[in-house]
Amino acid sequence: MRQSKMLIPTLKQNPKGAVALSHIMMLRGGYIHQVSAGIYAYLPLAYRVLEKIEKIINDEMQKIGAIRMLVPTLLPAKLWKESGRLSTYGPELFKLKNRRGTEYILGPTHEETFTALIRDTVNSYKDLPLILYQIQSKFRDENRPRYGLLRGREFLMKDAYSFSLNDKDLDRIYHNMDVAYRKIFDKMQLHYRPIIGNGGAMGGSDSQEFSAPAKVGEDTIVYSDKGDYQANLEMATSKCIAKKPDVAPKKLVKKSCPNTKTIKKLAKFLKVEPKQIIKSVLFIANKKKPVLVLVRGDHDVNPTKIQNFLGADFLDLATPSQIKKLVGCVPGYVGPVNTNVKILADDYVKYMVNTVAGANENDYDYVNVNPGRDFKVDAYGDFRLAKEGDVAPNGVGHLKFTPGIEIAHIFKLGTRYSKDLGATVLNENGKRVPVIMGCYGIGVSRLLSAIAEQQSDDNGLVWPISVAPFDIHIIPVNVKNDVQMNLALSLDKQLTKDGYEVLLDDRKKRAGVKFADSDLIGIPLRITVGRDAKQGVVEVKIRKTGETVKVRKDELENTIPIFRKELSNNK
Amino acid sequence: MRQSKMLIPTLKQNPKGAVALSHIMMLRGGYIHQVSAGIYAYLPLAYRVLEKIEKIINDEMQKIGAIRMLVPTLLPAKLWKESGRLSTYGPELFKLKNRRGTEYILGPTHEETFTALIRDTVNSYKDLPLILYQIQSKFRDENRPRYGLLRGREFLMKDAYSFSLNDKDLDRIYHNMDVAYRKIFDKMQLHYRPIIGNGGAMGGSDSQEFSAPAKVGEDTIVYSDKGDYQANLEMATSKCIAKKPDVAPKKLVKKSCPNTKTIKKLAKFLKVEPKQIIKSVLFIANKKKPVLVLVRGDHDVNPTKIQNFLGADFLDLATPSQIKKLVGCVPGYVGPVNTNVKILADDYVKYMVNTVAGANENDYDYVNVNPGRDFKVDAYGDFRLAKEGDVAPNGVGHLKFTPGIEIAHIFKLGTRYSKDLGATVLNENGKRVPVIMGCYGIGVSRLLSAIAEQQSDDNGLVWPISVAPFDIHIIPVNVKNDVQMNLALSLDKQLTKDGYEVLLDDRKKRAGVKFADSDLIGIPLRITVGRDAKQGVVEVKIRKTGETVKVRKDELENTIPIFRKELSNNK
Repeated sequence: MRQSKMLIPTLKQNPKGAVALSHIMMLRGGYIHQVSAGIYAYLPLAYRVLEKIEKIINDEMQKIGAIRMLVPTLLPAKLWKESGRLSTYGPELFKLKNRRGTEYILGPTHEETFTALIRDTVNSYKDLPLILYQIQSKFRDENRPRYGLLRGREFLMKDAYSFSLNDKDLDRIYHNMDVAYRKIFDKMQLHYRPIIGNGGAMGGSDSQEFSAPAKVGEDTIVYSDKGDYQANLEMATSKCIAKKPDVAPKKLVKKSCPNTKTIKKLAKFLKVEPKQIIKSVLFIANKKKPVLVLVRGDHDVNPTKIQNFLGADFLDLATPSQIKKLVGCVPGYVGPVNTNVKILADDYVKYMVNTVAGANENDYDYVNVNPGRDFKVDAYGDFRLAKEGDVAPNGVGHLKFTPGIEIAHIFKLGTRYSKDLGATVLNENGKRVPVIMGCYGIGVSRLLSAIAEQQSDDNGLVWPISVAPFDIHIIPVNVKNDVQMNLALSLDKQLTKDGYEVLLDDRKKRAGVKFADSDLIGIPLRITVGRDAKQGVVEVKIRKTGETVKVRKDELENTIPIFRKELSNNK
Repeated sequence: MRQSKMLIPTLKQNPKGAVALSHIMMLRGGYIHQVSAGIYAYLPLAYRVLEKIEKIINDEMQKIGAIRMLVPTLLPAKLWKESGRLSTYGPELFKLKNRRGTEYILGPTHEETFTALIRDTVNSYKDLPLILYQIQSKFRDENRPRYGLLRGREFLMKDAYSFSLNDKDLDRIYHNMDVAYRKIFDKMQLHYRPIIGNGGAMGGSDSQEFSAPAKVGEDTIVYSDKGDYQANLEMATSKCIAKKPDVAPKKLVKKSCPNTKTIKKLAKFLKVEPKQIIKSVLFIANKKKPVLVLVRGDHDVNPTKIQNFLGADFLDLATPSQIKKLVGCVPGYVGPVNTNVKILADDYVKYMVNTVAGANENDYDYVNVNPGRDFKVDAYGDFRLAKEGDVAPNGVGHLKFTPGIEIAHIFKLGTRYSKDLGATVLNENGKRVPVIMGCYGIGVSRLLSAIAEQQSDDNGLVWPISVAPFDIHIIPVNVKNDVQMNLALSLDKQLTKDGYEVLLDDRKKRAGVKFADSDLIGIPLRITVGRDAKQGVVEVKIRKTGETVKVRKDELENTIPIFRKELSNNK
């Protein structure tokens, strides 16, 4: 491929406004172009990378019996009414109407579309299991798009859906997907961690997320420094290592504690440690049900855990006026004693004795509060946000945090969607039962960013050979020099014939410009055809290591595979 | 591929509401599924056909140096303000806003997107010419979607855009596209006609449409029964064969002609032929400029020709109140005498003598009207709608009409978009000039319909081998019979190894059901493995001809290529 025919608008300078390394380098390398905030064009080089990624995904999907198809992006809003998500999905949902007033949404995901398809076309368990997938643009009305392809309003996803009669098939397919995803990311030489994900987000149970460690990542990966525990922070649990202190409960006392709305101020005022205080947080579930959550004063509530425990579509912090109405005080004095609100308490609270809690009265707290005696807890559980240093839930090692990019997510959905949409089949006994579902997503355009984030250096992108837009970049130093140009052309021809994808820089530019562009573009191997062309010698440069080797043209055929093998072995 | 793993929801009966053959058969064959009006899911079989079509397109695009990429579907409305099309495109444009109120459209085509891209990234003529293309979903808010994939609200298109410094390069690329398109459709064994298209629709000059003859087509293809003239009806011209009759002009007379608002009534009242009357039609161009168009009474005005002649974005028939205000009468008495409105007259009007025309006064017409003497014509031209039987414009043969499906369209755009959007480059003299553009579209999803429309029979679809979802359909008559099933499996394995794409019907269904499904699906070759399996003999059936041949399993390897060659030779 002649470089002059491609649109590769490289940039010498870092573009304004871009902060993520991948974003900067994909702009500078001429891979992407912003059309509007959070919306990008994939220029020819990026499109080639996408094709490689698609091929890797397709190959692995095929191996596990997943079948590709394509559903529309423009979906009737009434379909999402059936699942309830039209109102629960939130402001990220793009909505529009046609000229007749019919309401549509732009699909951010397609559980409903595929569930309705199965409902309308499959009648018997004999036609199951089925695994269907597509690769397609998805839409999210991000309030603050950022980091290039990482958080955009239009993006490419592979989304797969499985339909089976029973959980056994679901478990098998879920496992196969897990394995397939690992192979996919391994092929791309991507560092990733399979972590426990938030299944509740899709209304299902089990869920695993694949997160690619990267500084710019918005995930917090929680992992054990010794064991194999790995989870997204929103799901991360830790072992409760508290013990009931051998102390007799004292008499409950209401105490004036003015201006101590925070745990810190209250601890100082009472001369106790924060962990001797109960932190009480009032939430409103599903826009109407109040729930009071208690954690130890040095812990934080993890709202995701509360939401999943309650199975709530919405969970909001109570506003000051709601707090006033429900418990009768200003924020900062809320507590579990003398209240009718449902109480969820973190496991650590169970072990607290003679503790402190708000009195639901302005400027007053209770001291010598004892759970069980002074208030009833509706349910104990792990409701706290995990912290670095916590003991891993299996007791092996301590938790550490690292940022990551969510690149994929698999979910066991069960009957969450099939029940609402009425997707049933006749089972072996002729009885109608809802189909069991799973859904399995990969952020395809996001993978470009994740790979670029992990692999770029100061000079530009460094693509792994499996997804690089080309295998070899041939650069004749001086295209007006016939010897150089003829050798470059013959190498291009020969290597293309050998099955390599070759980009030939035939532009009349200075060598320095071409080398800088080549580094920015990041093709794994570069062949420079310069002065030594007279002797039939070229220079091969490995983009990743910077290593250069002079090679005779007739030895290239043997040399290239060696370099490629080396590059495909290391991550 | 095991059929049991695929979603192929065939239908025994014709679905309600579907009238087009292709629509019926793609629904019945389990290829597509309606998600909402005019919006379809491409099920696994259709997706495979799409992949084949894409590959054929990609191969030919690559040969002419076109480079694939991908732009977003969600476009900022302000981009279309720059070209002016936000207001002129009409109600087919889907519009929406994000949560912040920013306006977007869903791209029905991407002249603006690509022009802005070139504006933002290309600075010098040295980086031209460029040919970029993509295959992607497009959106049109069709008021009345119909005929399945033929006229939908979301559809797949290949759209290419060329950018060059000069017309010479544009002409060359346009020619290459023309040739490539012919190869593409030839490979698909599609009957098509390259016809003169409406370049004005995209704001350009030259344009050629590719139309696939089919009963359900909404194009009217106009062609000469002898010569090679072919055009879309909206652009079709014919030779004006009128001669000035050797008659002296008589005195203009105003005559009372009550209740003769139509040409037919007036002709009857005056006892003349319609062709002795001038038909006067008042239009409003661009929402404000009136223009009176005259054609012979037996002809009709072709509004497309008027619109292109005027270069108008809008052309509407004048309403009764506009007519009253502009010429002072009710519709039916409008005429060219005594009016200040701009007059365009069809060439045939020039040759009319002592003709009849409305007097711009209720119930009155003029007789003995003579163009030139009694009214001034601002411009003569071919403004009439071509009719069957007209002499072809080059004089060779007479015009015939046939319905067709618009499958592709190529346009020379010139600087229509580059000027408005400021897409300029520095030319050889260091001067900024707007880039010269062309655009080239193929209706990818529509091709499915066009092929199905031309190739289906009463039993279902009949795919040409180049686009068929599979090459061979193997049907073991009884999957519980080990001899049959083992032979079917080994043939599947062998033929797949030989490079064929094989669908194996492993479903436990009655043979009759499987054969009927096979006909509906329309794979070119079917191998039935039945009783003769014991003797190692199978039956090969050619879907297109219905021909069946018994073949020994070890002869299949030689037989299949012969059948395939036969099938790829005929259209």
